[in-house]
Amino acid sequence: MSKRLWAEFLGTFWLVFGGCGSAVLAAKVITENSGDSINMGIGFVGVALAFGLTVVTAAYAVGHISGGHFNPAVTLGCAVAKRVEWSAVVPYWVTQVVGATVAGAVLWVIADGKDGFSASKSGFATNGYGDLSPDGYSLAAVALTEVVLTAVFLWVILGVTSTKAPAGFAPLAIGLALTLIHLISIPVSNTSVNPARSLGVAWFAGGDALGQVWLFILAPLLGAAIAGVSYAFLTGDEDEPAAEEEARVGSHA
Amino acid sequence: MSKRLWAEFLGTFWLVFGGCGSAVLAAKVITENSGDSINMGIGFVGVALAFGLTVVTAAYAVGHISGGHFNPAVTLGCAVAKRVEWSAVVPYWVTQVVGATVAGAVLWVIADGKDGFSASKSGFATNGYGDLSPDGYSLAAVALTEVVLTAVFLWVILGVTSTKAPAGFAPLAIGLALTLIHLISIPVSNTSVNPARSLGVAWFAGGDALGQVWLFILAPLLGAAIAGVSYAFLTGDEDEPAAEEEARVGSHA
Amino acid sequence: MSKRLWAEFLGTFWLVFGGCGSAVLAAKVITENSGDSINMGIGFVGVALAFGLTVVTAAYAVGHISGGHFNPAVTLGCAVAKRVEWSAVVPYWVTQVVGATVAGAVLWVIADGKDGFSASKSGFATNGYGDLSPDGYSLAAVALTEVVLTAVFLWVILGVTSTKAPAGFAPLAIGLALTLIHLISIPVSNTSVNPARSLGVAWFAGGDALGQVWLFILAPLLGAAIAGVSYAFLTGDEDEPAAEEEARVGSHA
Amino acid sequence: MSKRLWAEFLGTFWLVFGGCGSAVLAAKVITENSGDSINMGIGFVGVALAFGLTVVTAAYAVGHISGGHFNPAVTLGCAVAKRVEWSAVVPYWVTQVVGATVAGAVLWVIADGKDGFSASKSGFATNGYGDLSPDGYSLAAVALTEVVLTAVFLWVILGVTSTKAPAGFAPLAIGLALTLIHLISIPVSNTSVNPARSLGVAWFAGGDALGQVWLFILAPLLGAAIAGVSYAFLTGDEDEPAAEEEARVGSHA
Repeated sequence: MSKRLWAEFLGTFWLVFGGCGSAVLAAKVITENSGDSINMGIGFVGVALAFGLTVVTAAYAVGHISGGHFNPAVTLGCAVAKRVEWSAVVPYWVTQVVGATVAGAVLWVIADGKDGFSASKSGFATNGYGDLSPDGYSLAAVALTEVVLTAVFLWVILGVTSTKAPAGFAPLAIGLALTLIHLISIPVSNTSVNPARSLGVAWFAGGDALGQVWLFILAPLLGAAIAGVSYAFLTGDEDEPAAEEEARVGSHA
Repeated sequence: MSKRLWAEFLGTFWLVFGGCGSAVLAAKVITENSGDSINMGIGFVGVALAFGLTVVTAAYAVGHISGGHFNPAVTLGCAVAKRVEWSAVVPYWVTQVVGATVAGAVLWVIADGKDGFSASKSGFATNGYGDLSPDGYSLAAVALTEVVLTAVFLWVILGVTSTKAPAGFAPLAIGLALTLIHLISIPVSNTSVNPARSLGVAWFAGGDALGQVWLFILAPLLGAAIAGVSYAFLTGDEDEPAAEEEARVGSHA
Repeated sequence: MSKRLWAEFLGTFWLVFGGCGSAVLAAKVITENSGDSINMGIGFVGVALAFGLTVVTAAYAVGHISGGHFNPAVTLGCAVAKRVEWSAVVPYWVTQVVGATVAGAVLWVIADGKDGFSASKSGFATNGYGDLSPDGYSLAAVALTEVVLTAVFLWVILGVTSTKAPAGFAPLAIGLALTLIHLISIPVSNTSVNPARSLGVAWFAGGDALGQVWLFILAPLLGAAIAGVSYAFLTGDEDEPAAEEEARVGSHA
Repeated sequence: MSKRLWAEFLGTFWLVFGGCGSAVLAAKVITENSGDSINMGIGFVGVALAFGLTVVTAAYAVGHISGGHFNPAVTLGCAVAKRVEWSAVVPYWVTQVVGATVAGAVLWVIADGKDGFSASKSGFATNGYGDLSPDGYSLAAVALTEVVLTAVFLWVILGVTSTKAPAGFAPLAIGLALTLIHLISIPVSNTSVNPARSLGVAWFAGGDALGQVWLFILAPLLGAAIAGVSYAFLTGDEDEPAAEEEARVGSHA
């Protein structure tokens, strides 16, 4: 189990450090030209790409060890769909939250290396609704978005790691699904679909952002559970063997 | 058949929710810097990427079940080219339009969670020509664009799912083809090449957008039919077996 | 041979229609926000992506038929490196220029569907140096850029289609190489590395752009010839069989 | 050995010419619209993509020859992890720095083909901290960023080239990891993680940029060494055979 937990630690660290790091450090970098402001930074497109590539790269690197979840909601959905044993859920969850928190801490140190940085004022890539939604979406809209996107994310994960899907492409498809999810929903919720990612930065921003983090724990878990329950019904894979599938993301052909 | 229809429902839902969702929610998100407006949103590049990634991810996830059409024009072209049985066409079409419409409805609920939203005023990612073309292209230019792009889209689909093409890459190539098509034509027609995608949001925008939707049903179907008829002639694949190919997008090697 | 020429026609049509089409129709689409101009269009990043994706998609679709050159310089480099027979060179060249020109014509008709379009005034995605270089680079800088980039492009093509490289990835690597080449050099020369692509739009822009097109025929051919000659020396693949390799781009495993 | 060194020369040339070239030539290309400045250039997103695609394309093309390092830190990390023989390290390092420097020279000649170019004033894509950090990050923040990112880069490289990871995807995963690293850290350090890349342009910018280059030699090497030492411990691959692995990036299946 310890190798699997190291892999989950590393992958979740990378997801939060890379994804939230790109948002905090690189999304908006203004230069002036003839008195006009120009953003040389990567914007929401770049942040979406960064989150997805953390999963593409980590899942190819260590997905064959741990299954490449890097996300408590993914672990729950895989457990519900019998792709991972239930006894792994709590160890995975703890490891993922620890990895995400360490990433938040390292990111905080780096971001603090620029004059004037404040985690609480900048938002520090936290998720939020209402006043803390990047573009002002209500709690209900944010909750619905997070549930729907996490559910589809899990359907994609369960489908691409099925034995009937082309071998080897799962890390690419799963990572690009996370990019897509961010392309849709950064303005709505700043995109969670991952309770560890939300917690990993919320500790440091504190205040209202930390007060809203409950939604980004519950909604992704709910969406993942719905997908885990419904996947077999939708695809007819009810008899798919669980044991072989367990760590199949990024496994060798 | 029911598993195949569930797969088509899910994929078409994802295509419209992800593609049109990214356009409605994320394309334009303005922030101010020193009095200048800056778009942090994903622009047309991000929307193009989002549409393509819906197909990449859904085709890897459930393409081995249904063939991964998610588009009535694709179903027609595949039927003409003998890659799917004709009796599947109407069930696929109905399912795709239902999936797209459910996606439009969920998107409407989310978009309405921001103050001041109006589906009819915002356009709601509908397709259009003349005054409703994003950059003011005529009906003839829009029609030609949609016919040509759908035809090439089908040639690509039929080619990459041929037994002579590298196995496993079809979902990636087909999804990226859809990204490319959007990179070219969002300013012209807001890009359809998919009657279900057009209908799925037109119901909600209503008015002139709904009045123009006929073009985005006819032109993609015409382009797809042209490609289906001409593919065998162009590539010499006239003897390719239809049955084996049927559900090959995203199939196992 | 006729199937191979159809494949080259289709692929070169797609390269020019998609690549130059994205530049002409979608690179710059201005909207106003609070009196500030915002570009919703795809910019040079999107055009670079579009050019590359034309090759990714067409090479996966028909690369197993023709080798997926879509570019007279690639055909020359492959002939020099003994990957395609010399007797195919002239038929390929003629077909590629015809395909590119048809693409230019269709693009002209579509672009003309917007009020105020002028192919000569807009540049119509032509290549140029000096005053016609997008960012004002000299003839010498443009020539050096085109020679170097085409040479590396051919080294990449010859390397990824070698029997020692991973099977199936060649269309992806080659297309992404073309994206990369555009990311570097659109401001310098508007990026050719492909005489057919340059000619296909220069006919329609006419004037000075047509007068400069000679450079974008000679420089890519020179770069490709250098690569074709040097590849075996650099990689030690001098004994690699030519016949098997001929149409290997996008071939089945 | 000479073929391997040619491959490293070519790959490192391509990495610096393509990555730094896109930054110097294409990141910022301003046009005016109604008096407002608009950047048509590729910004940090495009530069990040360019750096990654140099590795994707070169590793698919010649990775099966040399292992596709193109980076002294990667060579060190692979030696520490017993993936390449120690006797190869110095020849690889010398070749990589020479390739990077030749790329810097060619880029200088091209950039000088535009009026008003100055390598020292423009920065010439050099790395820096403090006043030379693109967004003003301190030496400590820059050092921490470079160490952490290079370490994760090496973990990814060692993981995806393990025999347990899906075959053929290593060049894609490694290149996309480099894109991700740039998405995170261009504003911090202009992103090195590669001493050869830093030196290849620093010679030409001279002055303070050259004076700071020591950090971009030491920090990546330190990060890579940490990863090389810890990889076996983290993943349990301590018994993985070294010899077979040596040139596995981009190898045939």
